[in-house]
Amino acid sequence: MTVHHLSPEILSAIEGAVGPGGFTADAAGMAKYLGDWAGDYRGEALAVLRPGSVGEVQAVMRLCSELGLGVIPQGGNTGLVSGAIDSKGRGLVVVSLERLNAIRQIDTENFTLRADAGCVLQTIKDACEAQDCLFPLALGAQGSCQIGGNAASNAGGVNVLRYGMARDLILGLEVVLANGELWNGFAGLRKNNSGYDLKQLFIGSEGTLGIITGVEVKLFPKPVQTETAYLGLASFEAAIQLFNRARRDCSDLISAFEIIGSECIELARLIDPGIAAPVSAPVQVLMELSSGPGIDLNTLLASFLADAMEKGLVTDAVLATSSVQARSFWAIREGLVEGQARRGYHVRTDLSVRISDIPALISQARHFIANSHPSWIPLVYGHAGDGNIHFNVLPPLELAEHHARARGAEVIAGLYEIAVGLGGSISAEHGIGRSRREEFWTGLSPTHRHMVAALKTALDPKGLMNPGCLLPATEILS
Amino acid sequence: MTVHHLSPEILSAIEGAVGPGGFTADAAGMAKYLGDWAGDYRGEALAVLRPGSVGEVQAVMRLCSELGLGVIPQGGNTGLVSGAIDSKGRGLVVVSLERLNAIRQIDTENFTLRADAGCVLQTIKDACEAQDCLFPLALGAQGSCQIGGNAASNAGGVNVLRYGMARDLILGLEVVLANGELWNGFAGLRKNNSGYDLKQLFIGSEGTLGIITGVEVKLFPKPVQTETAYLGLASFEAAIQLFNRARRDCSDLISAFEIIGSECIELARLIDPGIAAPVSAPVQVLMELSSGPGIDLNTLLASFLADAMEKGLVTDAVLATSSVQARSFWAIREGLVEGQARRGYHVRTDLSVRISDIPALISQARHFIANSHPSWIPLVYGHAGDGNIHFNVLPPLELAEHHARARGAEVIAGLYEIAVGLGGSISAEHGIGRSRREEFWTGLSPTHRHMVAALKTALDPKGLMNPGCLLPATEILS
Repeated sequence: MTVHHLSPEILSAIEGAVGPGGFTADAAGMAKYLGDWAGDYRGEALAVLRPGSVGEVQAVMRLCSELGLGVIPQGGNTGLVSGAIDSKGRGLVVVSLERLNAIRQIDTENFTLRADAGCVLQTIKDACEAQDCLFPLALGAQGSCQIGGNAASNAGGVNVLRYGMARDLILGLEVVLANGELWNGFAGLRKNNSGYDLKQLFIGSEGTLGIITGVEVKLFPKPVQTETAYLGLASFEAAIQLFNRARRDCSDLISAFEIIGSECIELARLIDPGIAAPVSAPVQVLMELSSGPGIDLNTLLASFLADAMEKGLVTDAVLATSSVQARSFWAIREGLVEGQARRGYHVRTDLSVRISDIPALISQARHFIANSHPSWIPLVYGHAGDGNIHFNVLPPLELAEHHARARGAEVIAGLYEIAVGLGGSISAEHGIGRSRREEFWTGLSPTHRHMVAALKTALDPKGLMNPGCLLPATEILS
Repeated sequence: MTVHHLSPEILSAIEGAVGPGGFTADAAGMAKYLGDWAGDYRGEALAVLRPGSVGEVQAVMRLCSELGLGVIPQGGNTGLVSGAIDSKGRGLVVVSLERLNAIRQIDTENFTLRADAGCVLQTIKDACEAQDCLFPLALGAQGSCQIGGNAASNAGGVNVLRYGMARDLILGLEVVLANGELWNGFAGLRKNNSGYDLKQLFIGSEGTLGIITGVEVKLFPKPVQTETAYLGLASFEAAIQLFNRARRDCSDLISAFEIIGSECIELARLIDPGIAAPVSAPVQVLMELSSGPGIDLNTLLASFLADAMEKGLVTDAVLATSSVQARSFWAIREGLVEGQARRGYHVRTDLSVRISDIPALISQARHFIANSHPSWIPLVYGHAGDGNIHFNVLPPLELAEHHARARGAEVIAGLYEIAVGLGGSISAEHGIGRSRREEFWTGLSPTHRHMVAALKTALDPKGLMNPGCLLPATEILS
């Protein structure tokens, strides 16, 4: 049975599940749930449901299971791969978690926090900060993304190097399954080796196996000191060598090691013309150490940099002498991302390779753009310490957007080919969603595909959960 | 079809899969594969197969799948929960990975290593050390356990606090599935957010979903300095408070925080009568910091301890002034484990609770022993920073072993009840195997059980992989 429109009976059943104020089915009411943060996708849906409790999420899934109605779980809608928006979603309902937005518990003795899935990341970070704790997940979208979406997409960000991806920070999940049953995977334990670690399945599954309604995370002591440096280097090779030395010489205190190609600075200046790179060099690195008390962190970083300059790895280095100056370094990193959005449509990638292959990735990708799309402008930046490079490409300003988008698809295909050729991934942190599904799926071995399909079928036999995201619709699988 | 004995046809098929030297079916040849390290279990098997290549493992699984013959994958056989030994395994074959024992690759630029599943952990650690790298997994059994078994059981150990469990250290796996297909999950990438993270399923699955044939792990820079202290404290409450302060004051440099009840010292002296605790206090802590260069680690630890003494958290503290002295502290921690084995049968647990509940766990457990088994001697030690306590209990020496074992089952049941009552786990790191299966399974919610069974069926529909381990035999599931 496929639902093509909401009959009065179905509307009444939905109202029974989420109450009269818990859903909207008119275009105006649905608009904000059907457009993404970056303006790249427009979705469709039969209705947007906004359950106000875990019980209501269960009622929604029981109803959808009965009707055979597909569901798109949605958090803050800040994803970049059309994971929570479906342009062909005319027969699906969006289930927004935004009304489940409470912090349930902060336990500073155990360094754990439990929150509803719809809790905004920044709210969680602020609550931890107020108790001298750190929840280290840090993303550009943290003011609007939700912790449930962070879990479902295994979010990354600038602190991965020190603290890991969302997967590494999650201790437990609470999930409503496709049949409406509730799985309580909370325990608050640091170590629990009791059979299959079921939460791992849902982390990064992009809503295709169930709806995450609650998340339990690890907290850390808030660092009491931070040292930030902005460095100029001659090449990406030098940057990778520098990182490897830093790993050895700075213990486990590196909290950021971001590579920025000098061509990115202009983009940041679109956001704030006052922005200027404190060094002049083709490759720039924003490096940050942080720690508790009792360590002379300034001397540690200063000596490291002096040694790196002496060895010729770094050509220029500015060690921030105030938090204002450190903020100005970060403004470059943040501004260059916003600047791309300001400039309009552009090719966005999220590639990862073995760390030692980063220079090859960048060199091959630049070569490809220079040869095949010479009027396009490549930008290189990323979390180099994780092997994760955002190699983005700006179309020439004079190219009309629809032409640029058509051409952009070729650019992306070429860049993916280069990453895959180096044994890399086309999705280091953004996920697969709908926009990368085909490249992802065709790149898998038959055995891998068979396992993915078997897991999907095991947990969502009717194919109701986020159909079309990550893997082809279930009917294709059998 | 159930295989009850090895017919000439089956023997010949096995020989076809692994060669004439690749299996043994006589009692003498099988003996070493059917007894565990701790001497707690005796197993049975139709035969022990020793494939010499990944292709041979595939051939074995194809054959077993055809015959409907159940398989027990086996690494170094150092597990403590009868996961690789089956006392009712008369109709099963053991597949030992011991001949797949090569290190395939060490990449010191990417800090990664790939090895065959049968590679002994100590061999891997030594190879890393020789290249100034650290593979931090550290277990008492490291001289004989194998990396594939470490992955399958999600091994823990003394370095979990700083570096995580095996799960946190694994970047990729290579697995032969129940149908003989090979899944290559190697990539060497730090970040790869591309759909379901399939390796997570096999980690900690105790051989019930496939045979791990290769493991890729993260390496770390070898610390260049280590500071070790042995502390005396008045109570377990003080130890937990001390740990929480240490987390804040010692950055992320704590590499061990082991709690030792003073009653354990006597056990260590069974191994070496020269062993003596450097402090006299009811609760003792072995604390270790480690780091790269450029940090005054000695001053960091010394100031931390001075402050803790001033605040009355620590009553006595000895900071090792030489590596010999540091080794003597570790000899206590290692000796107390060996001493228990030397003394004979004892109740062994591996409980975890929220860190703040450790004092309650210990107090309730001691109360239970004092009241219900007054002549038994409780021992408390463990990785307190992870919430993981080994609350073990020694029977009175005069009690005959078979009586002690019978009584021991009651002791274990009582201790599990206390841990579960505190929201804890009956298996922090040792796993479930066969010995804890019933308590584990009956403690799960119906929804959790249903999910476990669905995953098992999805990947091992014939129920061939380690039958009876972790979950009831598949026929019970449906």
